[in-house]
Amino acid sequence: MYEIAIVGGGPAGLAAAVNARQRNKKVVLISKEEHSSKLAMAHQIDNFLGINQITGLELAEKLRAHAEAVGTVFIKDEIQKIAASDEGGYQLWGRENLIEAKVVILAVGVALGSEISGENEYIGRGVSYCATCDGMFYKGKKVAMLGYIPEAEGEAAFLAEVASQVYYLPLYKVKNSLDERFTVISGKPQQILGEKKVQRLVTSQGEWEVDGVFIERASLPLAQLIADLELQAEMIYTTSEQETNLPGVFAAGDCTGKPWQINRAIGQGQVAALNAVQYLQELGS
Amino acid sequence: MYEIAIVGGGPAGLAAAVNARQRNKKVVLISKEEHSSKLAMAHQIDNFLGINQITGLELAEKLRAHAEAVGTVFIKDEIQKIAASDEGGYQLWGRENLIEAKVVILAVGVALGSEISGENEYIGRGVSYCATCDGMFYKGKKVAMLGYIPEAEGEAAFLAEVASQVYYLPLYKVKNSLDERFTVISGKPQQILGEKKVQRLVTSQGEWEVDGVFIERASLPLAQLIADLELQAEMIYTTSEQETNLPGVFAAGDCTGKPWQINRAIGQGQVAALNAVQYLQELGS
Repeated sequence: MYEIAIVGGGPAGLAAAVNARQRNKKVVLISKEEHSSKLAMAHQIDNFLGINQITGLELAEKLRAHAEAVGTVFIKDEIQKIAASDEGGYQLWGRENLIEAKVVILAVGVALGSEISGENEYIGRGVSYCATCDGMFYKGKKVAMLGYIPEAEGEAAFLAEVASQVYYLPLYKVKNSLDERFTVISGKPQQILGEKKVQRLVTSQGEWEVDGVFIERASLPLAQLIADLELQAEMIYTTSEQETNLPGVFAAGDCTGKPWQINRAIGQGQVAALNAVQYLQELGS
Repeated sequence: MYEIAIVGGGPAGLAAAVNARQRNKKVVLISKEEHSSKLAMAHQIDNFLGINQITGLELAEKLRAHAEAVGTVFIKDEIQKIAASDEGGYQLWGRENLIEAKVVILAVGVALGSEISGENEYIGRGVSYCATCDGMFYKGKKVAMLGYIPEAEGEAAFLAEVASQVYYLPLYKVKNSLDERFTVISGKPQQILGEKKVQRLVTSQGEWEVDGVFIERASLPLAQLIADLELQAEMIYTTSEQETNLPGVFAAGDCTGKPWQINRAIGQGQVAALNAVQYLQELGS
């Protein structure tokens, strides 16, 4: 079990890692990619104080190298669900790993890509972001998978094991041949409709009757990550100490709101780590 | 007239300067010293994300060089008083300069050295931090000057022009011979006493009847810097956008509270600058 699990490998997460390691805590950082794609894609950065002009990728490498040098454990995975553990602390469910930690620091950045009409309304009533978590509820039923990223194929394959029908809507450039069990559909997702529960998916090219709509994006909607997490204007609410409304859960960086800036993210990551360390002390660990 | 005046040359102030310059604002940064003494004195810093292990002085030089490279105007002075200007904006009174700006960012750090019993109680009723501002109220009266820094000598000399008696208590190692008009006293300051107004100064070596006590420290108490500035636990209160309670006045870094950390200060300086720029836009400038 780790003392501190950091979700997200951008500047906020790396800053949290360095500061928590400096206090000698056992720290794991879980990220989908080696570098924050937003940072790594930046052509030139000239407001990172102390380094006048650097490419995004070079800076991303410097930040990560620092966190590596001080002994952070890195795991490449996408955390899909976080839940309070019966023994105290939290369980973090990735696609491939189950990680346990006493404290969680969310530094997940912002989701790119906007929501679909009806999406938020039917969360938990037919809309889901995790096939392996919720797939079993759709045994013998019809589901659609909106795949914004290739990883959606594996999730849809899982659904094909249980559902009677899987409509697959690839929203990326498909490279490999798709699973034969999928019914491939097309168009731009427009609406999720129903009464009490999801009944229909509407795209720019047609309508499909379904009991569930699974959505696989580059980033999860924040509300989906952990139950009862308080949001403010769709971003994670934090105090100035980077505490969320949940005990032992801190947040830092772009996921806490604007301005979306590197130095702000790093400063918040530092504060989140120091308060996480303080919280661990109060737990007596 | 500047668009943005930044008071303080530590990490928060320099970050504010770089980000405001990036938005092409006319920026002046006023600081007593070329480098933040707290930063420059640090033996080794290992949690400045992206630079693993650096001396405080080297880091201070890097940060300042960045702010210089982007066109910040630097003025070496100590701001003693800030006041709203009749034409909008603020006037910043230094020892040697009067600076005007539409927006002020306070990044003054924390005062080292603790207060004297009775000091806070008698602010404005006999306790003052600025001889050139308040000296005239003591025409023909007796005053004491508690000088923690050599600059106090000049301030006390000003008082000697107007007061009937100046007790001078040097709390640093005196190098030059002192003004003959001073009555040099000794001991460790212990108490400032009086009824409605200051009447007595008590040190470990004696008591003196005085009408006023002037105090000259390395840093001013925050409450003295600008009228009606809201404090919280003796630090400058800010929102998460680094706004103070005064319009057009922002604050960042250690002066806004703990943890006193470089990355936090830099992040806050960045946010303060971006919101200052936003504020200028709303002013229509």
